Amino acid sequence: MELHVVINGRKDLAEQLYRQLREAMESGRLAAGAQLPPSRLLAEQLGVSRKTVSDTYALLTYEGLLIGKIGRGTFVNAWSPRSERLQRATDLACADTLAKWQALPSPMGHPSRDTSPRWDFIGGATTRNQFPQDEWRRCTQDALRRIAQNSGFYSQPEGLPALRSAIAGHIAFSRGVKCRDEDIVVTNGAQQALDLIARVVLEPGTIVAMEDPGYTPARLMFNAVGATVVGVPVDDQGIQVDLIPDGTRLIYVTPSHQFPLGMPMSPPRREALLARAFELGAIVIEDDYDSEFRYEGRPTDSLQSMDTRGVVTYVGTFSKTLLPELRLGYAVLPPALFGAVVKAKQLSDQHSSTLPQWALAKFISEGYLLKHIRRCHTVYAGRRERILARLAGDLSPWLEAVPTVAGFHMAALCKVPVNIPLLIELARKVEVGLYPLNVFFHETPVREGLMIGFGAIETLDIDPALDNVRDILQQIG
Amino acid sequence: MELHVVINGRKDLAEQLYRQLREAMESGRLAAGAQLPPSRLLAEQLGVSRKTVSDTYALLTYEGLLIGKIGRGTFVNAWSPRSERLQRATDLACADTLAKWQALPSPMGHPSRDTSPRWDFIGGATTRNQFPQDEWRRCTQDALRRIAQNSGFYSQPEGLPALRSAIAGHIAFSRGVKCRDEDIVVTNGAQQALDLIARVVLEPGTIVAMEDPGYTPARLMFNAVGATVVGVPVDDQGIQVDLIPDGTRLIYVTPSHQFPLGMPMSPPRREALLARAFELGAIVIEDDYDSEFRYEGRPTDSLQSMDTRGVVTYVGTFSKTLLPELRLGYAVLPPALFGAVVKAKQLSDQHSSTLPQWALAKFISEGYLLKHIRRCHTVYAGRRERILARLAGDLSPWLEAVPTVAGFHMAALCKVPVNIPLLIELARKVEVGLYPLNVFFHETPVREGLMIGFGAIETLDIDPALDNVRDILQQIG
Repeated sequence: MELHVVINGRKDLAEQLYRQLREAMESGRLAAGAQLPPSRLLAEQLGVSRKTVSDTYALLTYEGLLIGKIGRGTFVNAWSPRSERLQRATDLACADTLAKWQALPSPMGHPSRDTSPRWDFIGGATTRNQFPQDEWRRCTQDALRRIAQNSGFYSQPEGLPALRSAIAGHIAFSRGVKCRDEDIVVTNGAQQALDLIARVVLEPGTIVAMEDPGYTPARLMFNAVGATVVGVPVDDQGIQVDLIPDGTRLIYVTPSHQFPLGMPMSPPRREALLARAFELGAIVIEDDYDSEFRYEGRPTDSLQSMDTRGVVTYVGTFSKTLLPELRLGYAVLPPALFGAVVKAKQLSDQHSSTLPQWALAKFISEGYLLKHIRRCHTVYAGRRERILARLAGDLSPWLEAVPTVAGFHMAALCKVPVNIPLLIELARKVEVGLYPLNVFFHETPVREGLMIGFGAIETLDIDPALDNVRDILQQIG
Repeated sequence: MELHVVINGRKDLAEQLYRQLREAMESGRLAAGAQLPPSRLLAEQLGVSRKTVSDTYALLTYEGLLIGKIGRGTFVNAWSPRSERLQRATDLACADTLAKWQALPSPMGHPSRDTSPRWDFIGGATTRNQFPQDEWRRCTQDALRRIAQNSGFYSQPEGLPALRSAIAGHIAFSRGVKCRDEDIVVTNGAQQALDLIARVVLEPGTIVAMEDPGYTPARLMFNAVGATVVGVPVDDQGIQVDLIPDGTRLIYVTPSHQFPLGMPMSPPRREALLARAFELGAIVIEDDYDSEFRYEGRPTDSLQSMDTRGVVTYVGTFSKTLLPELRLGYAVLPPALFGAVVKAKQLSDQHSSTLPQWALAKFISEGYLLKHIRRCHTVYAGRRERILARLAGDLSPWLEAVPTVAGFHMAALCKVPVNIPLLIELARKVEVGLYPLNVFFHETPVREGLMIGFGAIETLDIDPALDNVRDILQQIG
């Protein structure tokens, strides 16, 4: 470990050292405030005399680039960063491949707390005030102890046994998913689960069928693997199974809470989907991203629990039930896929970080997750009811809710023509964040409307925010 | 949030409930010890009478499947897991793609502490006893506070600004890497950095040139993307630049500490490599995995710091300097690649978990990382000296060390024919873990020998372990 300086030969040692230190400061490599090594140490390291180093420090100090602090050492005083790069993307052999990536639209925006408007109906963000700080801290401290016991080695690519077991217990109990601990692979959120499955199932040009409208990040990721994505229209029962084309290798669906419209897939449609997948030899991904939050009616089966043929991969996440920035999710894999997905995981990033894995395993097994979900459920249920009341009330001339029973976003469709971009623009001016539905339609005719998330907005803010929306609708409608 | 039971219609309610609870227990979905919801709650949820539920609980208790604990509730008493899956991998449309993944050899073994022999010369594992528990705990607690302030939203795909800035400062100071914070993408270890770069640079059939012998996980990953990997022989100066084929898009090298042989790439070879890459329009990945640990001579430039044309991507990791299971690394990207790699990161897993990111940012900026590296350096230097002394001493009839100046593994080549598999097998019987060099050779002629890691083995264990090795060599040589 050393300051990076290279001395060649035995000539002009002070000059060489001076030039390099100066260059390092000018380029910003040695940043303002950085401490230089004591002259004795640096001299020893470079094999030069101590005087050479201290003279150089003195010169740079005289020039104002370094500053000596009595009893503390020598520090960088000022710098001006600089960066020159010559090769351009178009000169590279990989120019076309890069261009393809650069042309990809950004996946769905996940704005940070900073850029979020005061009243934000963004989807995917979770409620802020419910986060169980104390329990989570306790579990993280436990995680630190675990890591200390086994430090120095890599962990298992498929995830920590303790976490896989906790997940298996959780989803069996709450979602009726039939699985053994050994069927589970821990991933960095649901997105990585989709990515790993796509890699081991798809080839450039092979067909993926997915709901249209559907979850854009999944579509972009399948595209990035080189697959041909076919958007299959949905009706009020879910994906129109008879429109899934021959030759499909992978079918991506959100049966509990269709993304983005919100209705559940009907039981007959589920049966038909499983039969069609079996007939095609296709794998079905069931993305069950937020169905832990259920408000009405009896629980529906997960598709996975109806699958007697081993074609369904169930994908879940803790981004919705706990914290998006934790980046932990999982896939429940049929045996045919398990080994390949573990290899893909290992080649992608070896395994997920053990610090959050240990903490989450403890958090689930102590029962904190269930408690937390129950608390959030109450909050979300209240918000949902408020939004539904307004959609059925003073917003009803323009908008109507798509019936949903789960999750923490809903879709509102336009009943009359509304200039949605203008609505969104005017709402933003009064600090209300609204989001269009049309961006999730790809091949099927667009249905105009809004995707209304209620994770980020506080319950008491819903009415004033929707008052604003109503006023704008009256004005532009 | 509920126990997962589905009731259809109004007939045979108790029977339906009984069958489903029983099935849930038999299949293991309701595990032994799990608590059932109070009968009142479950009745409410399912829309059945409380008596229906309590009668069903009573029947299952009578059968011994449930057990009532006075004042605490009803629990699952016994279970027998069961899993049936019918579709086989060969029936799937993706059978060939899956087979390709399943046929991949496992990436380099990273055994856990559990399976490690008493005296283990494994590469890649870090020293256990030096881990700075207290400092790391303090930084993790700070991370928890940070997350509490911003909970509910996703974070930046390129990594937390605080961590990118800490990394830029660290590598400028310690490795002479010229970069701005904005050139850095935080990844889940170096492996994910390689994966993301491969994705945006390579297409099926395009050429990657890498050192042979070389780092197997990188080779497997390039293969998995569909690229054609060409192994380029190395000599004592490093990769033989004139053998890098025309049409190469990506060149993967380990200039500071060639993996696995250990010698550094000579300055003329570095110049030639940069010129060749520029001529080809190829991207160079400089994997600088462990060069923070340097024992002899003056520091060599990083290849990245010599690059005036923007063709080098510098990849680093905290697996070697801190903890492999942390899974944090980074890439310093030329502008041509930056945007594409960030998109690939976002589609792969959105971003790396913020808990370890915040903790590491604090750990670096507080100076703990430098202190930790210095402590480990002293430990590794002592181990290295001991192994070199033995290789130059009583092991010299059979083995000779390849000259290295950095890292915490070295290569020992056979001076006379040695039955390496037999040596490894016999060593394992006396609890010494030895690892062959030949597995890292792919297209060039194999040079027999050992890869000797000194991260996991304690300094005082080196001599007794190598005594055993010498005895075995005497016996089989």
